[in-house]
Amino acid sequence: MATEPTWRAKGEAKRQSILNAIPEKWIITSPIPSPAEQHDVTGAYIQQFLNRREIEITESDAVDIVAQTTSGGWTALEVTEAFCHRAALAHQLVNCLHEIFFEAAIEDAKCLDAYFAEHKGPIGPLHGLPVSLKDQFHVKGVETTMGYVGWINTFQGLPDDPRRGVEESELVRELRNLGAVLYCKTSVPATLMSGETINNIIGYTWNPKKRNLSSGGSSGGEGALIALRGSPGGFGTDIGGSIRIPAGFNNLYGLRPSAGRMPYQGAANSMDGQNIVLSVIGPLAPTARTLTLLFKSVLSQQPWNHDPLALELPWRESIVQETLSSIEKSKAGDSSLAFAIMPFDGVGRIHPPIARGLKLVEKTLKRLGHKVIDWSPPSHAPAHALASKAYQLDGGTDLNHHFGLSGEVQAPQVIVSQGGTEMIASQIAALSVSSREYKKQYMDYWNSTAELTGTGRPVDGLICPLASHAAVIPTQYEHVGYTTFVNVLDYTSISIPVTFADKTVDKLPAGTSLAEAEPHIEWDYDAVSYDGAPVGVQLVGRRLQEEKMLTLAQYIGEEIAKDVGRE
Amino acid sequence: MATEPTWRAKGEAKRQSILNAIPEKWIITSPIPSPAEQHDVTGAYIQQFLNRREIEITESDAVDIVAQTTSGGWTALEVTEAFCHRAALAHQLVNCLHEIFFEAAIEDAKCLDAYFAEHKGPIGPLHGLPVSLKDQFHVKGVETTMGYVGWINTFQGLPDDPRRGVEESELVRELRNLGAVLYCKTSVPATLMSGETINNIIGYTWNPKKRNLSSGGSSGGEGALIALRGSPGGFGTDIGGSIRIPAGFNNLYGLRPSAGRMPYQGAANSMDGQNIVLSVIGPLAPTARTLTLLFKSVLSQQPWNHDPLALELPWRESIVQETLSSIEKSKAGDSSLAFAIMPFDGVGRIHPPIARGLKLVEKTLKRLGHKVIDWSPPSHAPAHALASKAYQLDGGTDLNHHFGLSGEVQAPQVIVSQGGTEMIASQIAALSVSSREYKKQYMDYWNSTAELTGTGRPVDGLICPLASHAAVIPTQYEHVGYTTFVNVLDYTSISIPVTFADKTVDKLPAGTSLAEAEPHIEWDYDAVSYDGAPVGVQLVGRRLQEEKMLTLAQYIGEEIAKDVGRE
Repeated sequence: MATEPTWRAKGEAKRQSILNAIPEKWIITSPIPSPAEQHDVTGAYIQQFLNRREIEITESDAVDIVAQTTSGGWTALEVTEAFCHRAALAHQLVNCLHEIFFEAAIEDAKCLDAYFAEHKGPIGPLHGLPVSLKDQFHVKGVETTMGYVGWINTFQGLPDDPRRGVEESELVRELRNLGAVLYCKTSVPATLMSGETINNIIGYTWNPKKRNLSSGGSSGGEGALIALRGSPGGFGTDIGGSIRIPAGFNNLYGLRPSAGRMPYQGAANSMDGQNIVLSVIGPLAPTARTLTLLFKSVLSQQPWNHDPLALELPWRESIVQETLSSIEKSKAGDSSLAFAIMPFDGVGRIHPPIARGLKLVEKTLKRLGHKVIDWSPPSHAPAHALASKAYQLDGGTDLNHHFGLSGEVQAPQVIVSQGGTEMIASQIAALSVSSREYKKQYMDYWNSTAELTGTGRPVDGLICPLASHAAVIPTQYEHVGYTTFVNVLDYTSISIPVTFADKTVDKLPAGTSLAEAEPHIEWDYDAVSYDGAPVGVQLVGRRLQEEKMLTLAQYIGEEIAKDVGRE
Repeated sequence: MATEPTWRAKGEAKRQSILNAIPEKWIITSPIPSPAEQHDVTGAYIQQFLNRREIEITESDAVDIVAQTTSGGWTALEVTEAFCHRAALAHQLVNCLHEIFFEAAIEDAKCLDAYFAEHKGPIGPLHGLPVSLKDQFHVKGVETTMGYVGWINTFQGLPDDPRRGVEESELVRELRNLGAVLYCKTSVPATLMSGETINNIIGYTWNPKKRNLSSGGSSGGEGALIALRGSPGGFGTDIGGSIRIPAGFNNLYGLRPSAGRMPYQGAANSMDGQNIVLSVIGPLAPTARTLTLLFKSVLSQQPWNHDPLALELPWRESIVQETLSSIEKSKAGDSSLAFAIMPFDGVGRIHPPIARGLKLVEKTLKRLGHKVIDWSPPSHAPAHALASKAYQLDGGTDLNHHFGLSGEVQAPQVIVSQGGTEMIASQIAALSVSSREYKKQYMDYWNSTAELTGTGRPVDGLICPLASHAAVIPTQYEHVGYTTFVNVLDYTSISIPVTFADKTVDKLPAGTSLAEAEPHIEWDYDAVSYDGAPVGVQLVGRRLQEEKMLTLAQYIGEEIAKDVGRE
C-alpha cells in the first residue's frame, strides 16, 4: 500500500497554517467559483468583499497613500488593516502568500500612529505604507521557506541556526526605518528558477486576471497580490526576468535595476555566490511613480554603508531633470529622445498579442514625435546560452541539496536541471570572460546607434517583449531569453503594462499557415486561452540607468495608457 | 652535454632587443658601478647623464608639466624626448622596461605640437604628458609579453591572432584622447602574482634607491622607472598590492581604486575571469596630485560607456570639496577628521623601519589635531586566506598554460603554485559567500567606529603598513596580507611615502631578544641591508572613496613631508 510521503504532509500542514493565519472575519465563506466560471477576480469581483473605505485606500497608489499617511490624512492603522484584508482575500483567490503576519503589522502601524501623534510628523517617506515582500526576505518572527518544504521550521534549511526567527534582511531594516509596514511575504517557485510560481507548499499561484493562466515567476506572488491590490507595491528579485515577468503578466510596472543598487544583504537566495549573472532586488507596483518612490526611498538609507555589494550611487535627481527636459523639448516639437524596437530576438517567436502590444507602443512613440529605429544587435543566442550556463554552473548541487532536505519533487517548470555536472574554476573563468566580451559587443552596438537617432546620442531605450506570450498557459513557458539577455548585460529594465490579449483581434489570418501568416510565431498560440491575459513590454536601458528609465517608463506608460484608452 | 634551453635564448634575444631599441646616443658607455659601489642611482647619480633642461622637465611633476604643455610653455616634443632619454637611462640602471617605442612617441608628440599650433590650445588635459604603462596594456605596433617568454611574437600567447600589434586597450585609447604620449611599457613578474619583479626576459628589476633590494611588484617596473623620474606617472594594476607595494618601495604615491572605476577592458591579465578578488588599474606617481590628475582625466572619458565592468561614477568634485572643508575646519582647531592606525594585522610582524614610519604618521596626525584611534577589526586571517584561495582558484591552470608555451621556469617569488587543484562551482560559490560575509563584518566594524571618533562619523581613513618591511631583500617577501586584505574588501587605498630605513635608528635595543624587544618583529631584520630603503604606509578608505582618499593622501603626505623634513 502506497503511503503519503512525509514532505507532502509537511507542505500541506504549512499550507494550512498560512490559511489559518487569516482572521476568521476575512475568510471567504461563500464558495469561490471555478476559473472557468470566473476568470477575472480583480476589480469588481474582489471589491464585493470590501467596504467603500477599504476600496478607496487599496486602490490608491503608494504615492497617494503616503501623501495621506505622512500628512496625517489617513492613519497607518486603517491603511494597514485595509491591505491586510485585501491581501487575505487575494490569497484565498489565487494562492499568492507564503507568510501572513497581520498582527505584527497592526502593532507596527499603531506604533507609527503613536510616533506621528508625538512628533507631529512621519518617521520617514514611507510612513504607514504597507509593502509586500517576496519570500526571500527575512523578517523577525516570521519564517522564510522560499517554497522549499525542507526549509519549514529552519533557517534556510539549517534546523538549529541562531538566526532563525531573529534575523532581518538589510532591505527589511531599511524599509522599517522608512516607515513601511510589513505584513506578508509572497509566493515563489522553489529554486526561484522558473517563469511560473509553483511549489509543494502553496501549490500554484494563479493569474488574478485569468485564473487558469500563470501569474509569472519567480516573483509570482508579488505579481498576483499587487494585481489584486492586496499590496500597493512590493519587492521581488530578478536573475532572469523574475520581477519583469510577473509584472508583465499582471498589468504592472516592475523594475529590474542593475546589480548593486538595491541591498541584497541578508536575503535568502538560490545558488548564492554564483556571480556570473547576479540576482537583483527591485520593486513591482501598479504605477511607475510607485517604483520610483520605493527605489528612491531605499537609496536614501545609503545601502552601500550596510551591504558590501551595494554601490555608492545615491538617487541622481539631475538625471531625472535631464530626462524630463528631453521630454519637454519633445512636447515642444523638438524631439530629443529616440527609441529602438526589437520585435524578435532571433531565438524565440512571439504571439500575436505581443506583436500587437509592440505596435501599440511604437504608435505611441511616433505620435509623440520620437524617432523609432530598428534594433540589429549582436545575436541574442550567445546571451541565452550564457544565462543558461550561469544558472547551471553547479550542475544543480544547490537545488539538489534543498530539495533533498525533505525529499520533495522538483516542479517541471524549473529551468535548472538537477542532474548536471559542476563546472571547474577555469571553465567558470572562461564563461566570465565570454560574458564580459558579449557585454562589450552589445555596448559597442548601443553606442553605434548614435549615428541613427538624430539626437546626437545613442537610443534612450529599447522596447522589446518580456516573453513570447502574454501571461502564460501553465507549463508552456518555453523561451526565457527575452528577459535573460538583460540579466547577462546587467542592464536596467522596466516592465510597462500595455494591453490585454483579445481573441477577436489577436488571431492569425484565416486560411494561412503559421509560418506564412506571421514568421514570428512558432509555438502554439491559442487565441481563446490567452484572451484577456495582460500584455506588457519592457523598456530596456543601459547599466545603472535607473533614474532615467524610471522617468521614461512613467512618461511612456502614461502615454500608452491614453492611446490604449485604459484611462 | 647540457644544452641551453630554447626559452632562455628567446628570453635573452628579447632582452637584447629591448636594449637595442635605445638610441645609440642614450647608451651609458661608462661602466655602471655595482650595487655595492653605488646603492642609489636616483637624484645626482642619474642626473650626470642629463642636461639641465632635461633635469628641469623630468623632475617637474605631471601637474606642473601639463601646466606648461597645455599653455604652450613647453612643447610635447621636448618633454617627450627628455622622458625618453631618462627612461632609457633608468632601464640600463635597474632593468625596468619591457617595451621601448620612443620613435612612435616622438611622432605622436610632433602631432600634438602641430595640433596645438593649429588650434591654439591643447587636445586634452594630458596634452604632451608622457605616461608609462605596465606591460599589460596593448599599444598598437608594440608587443605585450607580460614577462612570459611564450608570449614573444604572439598576442597573449596566441601566435596568429589578428589583434597582434593592432589592438589597443581601452585605457590606452582614452589616454591618447586626453593627449598623453605613450613611449614605454614597464616590467612585471611573469604571472603578475609576486611582490617582486622578475622574469625570464629582463631578469630582475632592482630598486633605484638601493640596487640590491626589490623595486616591488607586480608593477615593479613602474615603481622603479618613476622613482628614477623616467616617467612622471604611469598606470599599474593591483590584485594583491601590485600598485601599492612598488609605490611604497620606491618613495611614491600609488592608488588602488575600487573595482569598476578605471577601465580594464582590453588589457592582458592573469587568471582572467576569476572574479572573487578583482585586479584593478590605478596610477603611480611622485606626487598625490598627479594621481588625481591621471585618475580624474581618465574618468572624463566616461569609461563606463566603453568598458562593461566600469561604473558610471564620474569624478565627484563635491566629495573633494567636502573633504577639503573638513581639512580647513581642522586647521581652524575644530578637528572634523579621525583616523585609525593598525601597526599589526595579527598575522605578519613588522620591521623597525615600518614601525617608525607609522609612528611618524601618527605624530603628524596628532600635530594636526586629528583624533587617532586604535583599530580592532575582525581578524585579518580570514582575509588572508580568502585572497590566497582566490588566487589559487584554478590550481595554477592559467599559469601552467602560459609558462608551458615556452617551457620556461617559474620564479620562486610567485605566490601561486602551479601544482594545485581546480575548485568546482559550488566551492567557488561558497568562497564568494564567505568573501561577502567578511566584507559585511568589516563594514559593520568600520561603521562602529563612529562611536569613538568624536566626529559623528566613522574613521575617515585607516593607516597601516604596506608590508612587514621596507623595499624588500630579494626572495624575503613573506607576508602579502597587509595589501591583500584591501583587495578582498575592495577598498580604496593609497600608498604614501614616509621615510627611509635608517640603520642608526631602526634597530633592536642591545641585549634583548627579538620577542622581548619588539613583539611585532618576527622575520629576519637586517638593519644594514635595509638601510636607505624607502618606507611607505597605506591610507585605506572605504569602497569607491577615491575622491576623498586622494584629497586626504595629498594633505597627509604633504604634512608628513614637512615633519620628516623632506621638504
